[in-house]
Amino acid sequence: MSDELKRGLEGVLVAESELSHVDGQVGKLVYRGYDIETLAREATYEEVLYLLWHGDLPTRAELSEFSSGLAAERAVDDDVLDVVVTLANAGEHPMAALRTATSMLSAYDPDADAEAEDADVSLRKGRRVTAKLPTVLAAFERARQGEEPIEPDPELSHAGNFLYMLTGTKPDDVSEETMDMALTLHAEHGLNASTFTAVVIGSTMADIYSCIVGGIGALSGALHGGANQDVMEMLHEIDASERDPVKWAADRREAGGHIPGFGHRVYKVKDPRATILEDKLRDLSESDGDDKWLRYTTSIEAYLEEEGLHEKGIAPNVDFYSGSVYDHFGIPMDLYTPIFAMSRVGGWIANVLQYQSENRILRPRYRYVGETDAEFVPIDER
Amino acid sequence: MSDELKRGLEGVLVAESELSHVDGQVGKLVYRGYDIETLAREATYEEVLYLLWHGDLPTRAELSEFSSGLAAERAVDDDVLDVVVTLANAGEHPMAALRTATSMLSAYDPDADAEAEDADVSLRKGRRVTAKLPTVLAAFERARQGEEPIEPDPELSHAGNFLYMLTGTKPDDVSEETMDMALTLHAEHGLNASTFTAVVIGSTMADIYSCIVGGIGALSGALHGGANQDVMEMLHEIDASERDPVKWAADRREAGGHIPGFGHRVYKVKDPRATILEDKLRDLSESDGDDKWLRYTTSIEAYLEEEGLHEKGIAPNVDFYSGSVYDHFGIPMDLYTPIFAMSRVGGWIANVLQYQSENRILRPRYRYVGETDAEFVPIDER
Repeated sequence: MSDELKRGLEGVLVAESELSHVDGQVGKLVYRGYDIETLAREATYEEVLYLLWHGDLPTRAELSEFSSGLAAERAVDDDVLDVVVTLANAGEHPMAALRTATSMLSAYDPDADAEAEDADVSLRKGRRVTAKLPTVLAAFERARQGEEPIEPDPELSHAGNFLYMLTGTKPDDVSEETMDMALTLHAEHGLNASTFTAVVIGSTMADIYSCIVGGIGALSGALHGGANQDVMEMLHEIDASERDPVKWAADRREAGGHIPGFGHRVYKVKDPRATILEDKLRDLSESDGDDKWLRYTTSIEAYLEEEGLHEKGIAPNVDFYSGSVYDHFGIPMDLYTPIFAMSRVGGWIANVLQYQSENRILRPRYRYVGETDAEFVPIDER
Repeated sequence: MSDELKRGLEGVLVAESELSHVDGQVGKLVYRGYDIETLAREATYEEVLYLLWHGDLPTRAELSEFSSGLAAERAVDDDVLDVVVTLANAGEHPMAALRTATSMLSAYDPDADAEAEDADVSLRKGRRVTAKLPTVLAAFERARQGEEPIEPDPELSHAGNFLYMLTGTKPDDVSEETMDMALTLHAEHGLNASTFTAVVIGSTMADIYSCIVGGIGALSGALHGGANQDVMEMLHEIDASERDPVKWAADRREAGGHIPGFGHRVYKVKDPRATILEDKLRDLSESDGDDKWLRYTTSIEAYLEEEGLHEKGIAPNVDFYSGSVYDHFGIPMDLYTPIFAMSRVGGWIANVLQYQSENRILRPRYRYVGETDAEFVPIDER
């Protein structure tokens, strides 16, 4: 037992994982050994879920069964949809609404009375939550707009169906493909705070719903999810200023301000996920005939590279391009973090199952620095 | 950066705390230096909340303002009560129902749009949740019984009002006092898994609702809350067998079975909380004229002590006597863990506020043991 304080648990190894690895020096991210760029471009989000949950990429037959199983679970009980509408009417924040609705889903799970310790049960429940989160989120957004929810279409992919339920229009190929890539890129990233939260909760052998609900809570924190929203706010601010984005960014930096979406704790070169999303932003810009955000983001990136930030290990991260991509779909900024949750739920489930397979309750300790022998004074003598 | 794996983070110091300390060798627990036995006997749960949240025991005037403020926050929005009834009708588990209802409360918080980073805001929100949890829980139990919820009575104490809302009858003095003590005894206990969960979520600067909801999730795990339920199930089993409790316990041990409510990771002598609850069980037994559980529990304890378990550091913990106490109030077993949550919420809030005052996001790491260069095979070639 060491007496050293491990603030933030930085660098502390808590368990072994086979799920993902980042080489921040060369900007490489793998899921179970597969390069993220290849997975994003060549595999669907459903394939990636299968890979994370089952350990291998599926065959065509396995994927077909898996995907139709997932699609069959998309419908959400009317009681939960009613609450989603109630929350939208109450003006609840989307992440908080997602937390409540996800928690409520457990009451309607056919395995509600099964053993939480059973990994097969957890996986079935986890699959149901993964299938239903887009339905919940789309229904919430439509309720805010005063619109009825749109029933899921089992013929569409996970990504395509989400865009369809959100907008009422079946997405074109480039939109569906881009949304699918965005989900793949955010699915898993080691022991970030939300995944760690899910694992800590899972280490008590709590139900997977509790783990996911905890993960959503952690992701809602300002220090975790939400940086892509900051980037988008900056882009809108630049737009409103009618100034040149590079001049705007230079002034911001001169005033001691920070450019969001740059720099990462692990990546010291450009985040591979940013590279992929930049490509897709280019495709979307062509397809929409609107390249404003592409011009703003790429010119700011080029300017900061020229200024030597890349050499200092401060390069674009995944958040720098994802907001612009979502904006092309007409998605409001406060849904960016819920979409992150909709994707990362796959990673949370994989991490909880992995941890529970060699479980040990996670319980560190404090250094006690308070009093030990305080004298109790009766209230009327205080 | 050490390459040693800290399984379960056992013994790892993550932060400093002034909130509570256990000396397991002598069986002493303090909250901010005050002995738990004195606090349980001399102070109310409201005083203990004040102590945990504000750092000092309140004066009479401070306590009066604090308690009436808490009592004024007991009412729960009808939308949430409707969901509580819906969940009861759907057969949801009480801890899951508490998780959902608590999460939903955030939508109706008057500070919903205030900065999550503001400690005063978090404390106000936390106080509201603390005030409302008994209301939610009592309404859930009554809905399961097909009864209407009972409105909180601001003239009653936190503990007394809970029993009143649950049963519809104002509790007698010994019942109110005992419930109050039970709440005090469970309010805080360092970095157990649920408190750690709340702190991890809080370390992202997430809203206090997310922290509490996460804590409830972790507490629901079989390895965390719930041992008092196991004790009560044992007592009922003994009762149904019509056998002598000591003979029953001896047979259970001979068959390699474990007696729940004995032994603790930290306490190597009798948990001070068990001593206090045993006393109160004695009072309740006298007052009710029913000493069955008292006879069963004390005779099993005496038998195990004779067998030398105490000498081996295996002594009664808080869970050994709390179930019998709750049973005297007619509380069903599956509400024991929710009652634990209703008390511990005070500790969760204190821990989150303390941690956020010197915040550092909690993000340990994994040892990656998976593949790094897996070759992607297109799906039709797998």
